[in-house]
Amino acid sequence: MKTIQTDNSKSSKSYKENLTLYDNAGLARLYNGYIEKFKKLESKKFKLDMSRGKPSPKQLDLSSELLNSDGDASNWISEDKTDCRNYGILDGLPEMKKFISECTGIDAECFIVGGNSSLSMMFDAISCFMIHGVGNNTPWIKQEKIKFLCPSPGYDRHFEMCEHFGIEMIPIEMTLDGPDMDMVEELVSKDSSIKGMWCVPKYSNPDGIVYSDDTVRRLASLKPAASDFRLFWDNAYFVHDLTDNPPKLLDIMSECERRGNEELPLLFFSTSKITLPGAGVAFLACKKGNYFQLRNNYSFKTVGFDKINQLRHLKFLKNRSELKKHMAKHREIIKPKFDTIIEALKDEFSSNPILTWTEPKGGYFISVNTAKGCAKRVVTLCKKLGLNLTSAGATYPYGKDPLDRNIRLAPTFPSTKELEAAMGIFSLTVKIAYIEKRLSLF
Amino acid sequence: MKTIQTDNSKSSKSYKENLTLYDNAGLARLYNGYIEKFKKLESKKFKLDMSRGKPSPKQLDLSSELLNSDGDASNWISEDKTDCRNYGILDGLPEMKKFISECTGIDAECFIVGGNSSLSMMFDAISCFMIHGVGNNTPWIKQEKIKFLCPSPGYDRHFEMCEHFGIEMIPIEMTLDGPDMDMVEELVSKDSSIKGMWCVPKYSNPDGIVYSDDTVRRLASLKPAASDFRLFWDNAYFVHDLTDNPPKLLDIMSECERRGNEELPLLFFSTSKITLPGAGVAFLACKKGNYFQLRNNYSFKTVGFDKINQLRHLKFLKNRSELKKHMAKHREIIKPKFDTIIEALKDEFSSNPILTWTEPKGGYFISVNTAKGCAKRVVTLCKKLGLNLTSAGATYPYGKDPLDRNIRLAPTFPSTKELEAAMGIFSLTVKIAYIEKRLSLF
Repeated sequence: MKTIQTDNSKSSKSYKENLTLYDNAGLARLYNGYIEKFKKLESKKFKLDMSRGKPSPKQLDLSSELLNSDGDASNWISEDKTDCRNYGILDGLPEMKKFISECTGIDAECFIVGGNSSLSMMFDAISCFMIHGVGNNTPWIKQEKIKFLCPSPGYDRHFEMCEHFGIEMIPIEMTLDGPDMDMVEELVSKDSSIKGMWCVPKYSNPDGIVYSDDTVRRLASLKPAASDFRLFWDNAYFVHDLTDNPPKLLDIMSECERRGNEELPLLFFSTSKITLPGAGVAFLACKKGNYFQLRNNYSFKTVGFDKINQLRHLKFLKNRSELKKHMAKHREIIKPKFDTIIEALKDEFSSNPILTWTEPKGGYFISVNTAKGCAKRVVTLCKKLGLNLTSAGATYPYGKDPLDRNIRLAPTFPSTKELEAAMGIFSLTVKIAYIEKRLSLF
Repeated sequence: MKTIQTDNSKSSKSYKENLTLYDNAGLARLYNGYIEKFKKLESKKFKLDMSRGKPSPKQLDLSSELLNSDGDASNWISEDKTDCRNYGILDGLPEMKKFISECTGIDAECFIVGGNSSLSMMFDAISCFMIHGVGNNTPWIKQEKIKFLCPSPGYDRHFEMCEHFGIEMIPIEMTLDGPDMDMVEELVSKDSSIKGMWCVPKYSNPDGIVYSDDTVRRLASLKPAASDFRLFWDNAYFVHDLTDNPPKLLDIMSECERRGNEELPLLFFSTSKITLPGAGVAFLACKKGNYFQLRNNYSFKTVGFDKINQLRHLKFLKNRSELKKHMAKHREIIKPKFDTIIEALKDEFSSNPILTWTEPKGGYFISVNTAKGCAKRVVTLCKKLGLNLTSAGATYPYGKDPLDRNIRLAPTFPSTKELEAAMGIFSLTVKIAYIEKRLSLF
């Protein structure tokens, strides 16, 4: 099995100290110098929040046309003559379903077009299954114990949601091909209390890993012990590429269908990081019993989601090829930011294996691993210097990184200049934390 | 106890037949004439949907300015400098809370500003209580049986929601002062399986009744046997007046607080029938433990609701006095429609007590009662003539009107001309159904 550790040894820039080669006395000498630098930086009152994957204002400006609008009624009539200002249309405008179908390759009739949050749609699905059960199965909450598989590191909000619902989480190790499928198959086929699995299949949060074809096929072939097991397929970064030839993700829906497993996956998409995070459109796609049940559940919850915002998005994003052009503009803004971080990391740690990192081809994060037991200390030290990172451990179930080494860096919001300053701080704290660990100072 | 039957005897227009005075032979003669009229109308292929309380296009046009907007970033910054296009602000913009506080008289910090649907916020609250329990109480779903009090006739979507969650409904008779409080007090104080009560306290759906001060005070004074009992106070029509001196509803929140009962009520408001039903803003107001729990629940469900739409509404509705002016424009459009229906009813049934009705001072409906056992037949006959009414029974729990007599009329969507035609159809079918009942033809 491949591991997710990047091999940094090939880099040519190797003029920085390799701390792993120092003895304790040498480390102590270096430490004094680092602490001096730390104190200098402390006085500079730097302040930056790099904790969340937020688009920058410049990215939001790309969608300013979305908010240019004219209130005349004639602008808000859908293809089927529905006045979108009024009540109705529970599961989304037909043209919006067509649009997302064209962009994802999934049949239009599989979609429920939601409000501004795909997270809410995941929450709604779990709530529904907790109270009503999946299909005719016993409600999850009335079963003795239920568990979700959680590829880790993963998305903190997925894990917090499980904890909120009292769902026990089983961490699954991530490889460069996606979750460790041997472990997934073993567990899912034997333990009928396992009811779900979180997947961020393209540019996984935070590692940026794209599930390989083999991984997708093995997931689509799962024979769960629990008939009410579901894949929560959060394809948050489906068009969020940073390269010319982006990796392709196999379509889980058709792979499942081919195997008579079409009830397995619930797919989630959103425009939050395409247009506006505060005012985007979310999508849920699923088939048959899932679709019937979740649509029916929504029919008691709402008369319909915001159709005006659906039309707004259609007028702006238009179609698949326009969406691609729009995403290229995002890439133009954020790729240099990813590069700034990667370059800083290479510069500092290419020959200093106290830190490894991923080089994602898309998505919103760079994931780094410190030496064991250093991540929390790094985040604490950064905070002292005014740099707010995602809490160490947040990328693991229950907020507990067993090796205390993973840190998620979010490059998109700050300016390049801010990122440069931030990486100076970050690199320094990584070295300080490493020496402290070696010398058992903390 | 006052009843909700209107006394029609005072009307001067009494030239129409009083069918209650006819003997069977006389009714049979009239019936033949009515059936002839019915057949003529059948051939006219009339088509109108009066089933839901939908604003008319003209009413929606009142808010066209809401959709006039400019995408420039500077327009979408909140008072506290938040870029509303981006993630964040879970419980609503401070200025939006101030606005709704000014309009409702409830403290700003009690509010969670939601998405486009207050119904969703009711659903979310019930979901939360089902799964997690109210505060530290046992989850509703894990208690043997739970029940809600349902003032009836009432809002069909409230009742359907209860049914969806498996909550047993106990109908409570409505009086001109609101729900029968003797019964409410008796039940709530003795039966600890009663966990909630639906209230549409102003212009109740469908009767248009405003809860009297005494009713509100008695509700605020309830001493429920269940510590996890909550009032679901759906104040959907809080500014939806149709008269110059609208009746005032006592503030349930302060009445509850005065009695140390501030955990009792959950209040819901929305702009659906103020601006756009498809794209409005919903509000939940509550205190202390409720607020903490429901806000916390939302923190796992979403990063935040659509703040852009909140700002849009603020720019448009501005403040309490502007809101009042805006609602006056709605009144100008819909009052004549209410009048058309009331006039038609007076004209046909003032001296013909086979139908009684309410004359609401606000809200969205006129509620009529046929003779016992006639409502379903009337709705069926209307449907045959192309007039779609709310299903008979829909205004009662489980869709079962025990006397089969209540029908909800929704005047707002059709034009006055359509309403006139619709009332001709309606009146005819009321008379046909009455005779059929008397003659046991159906």
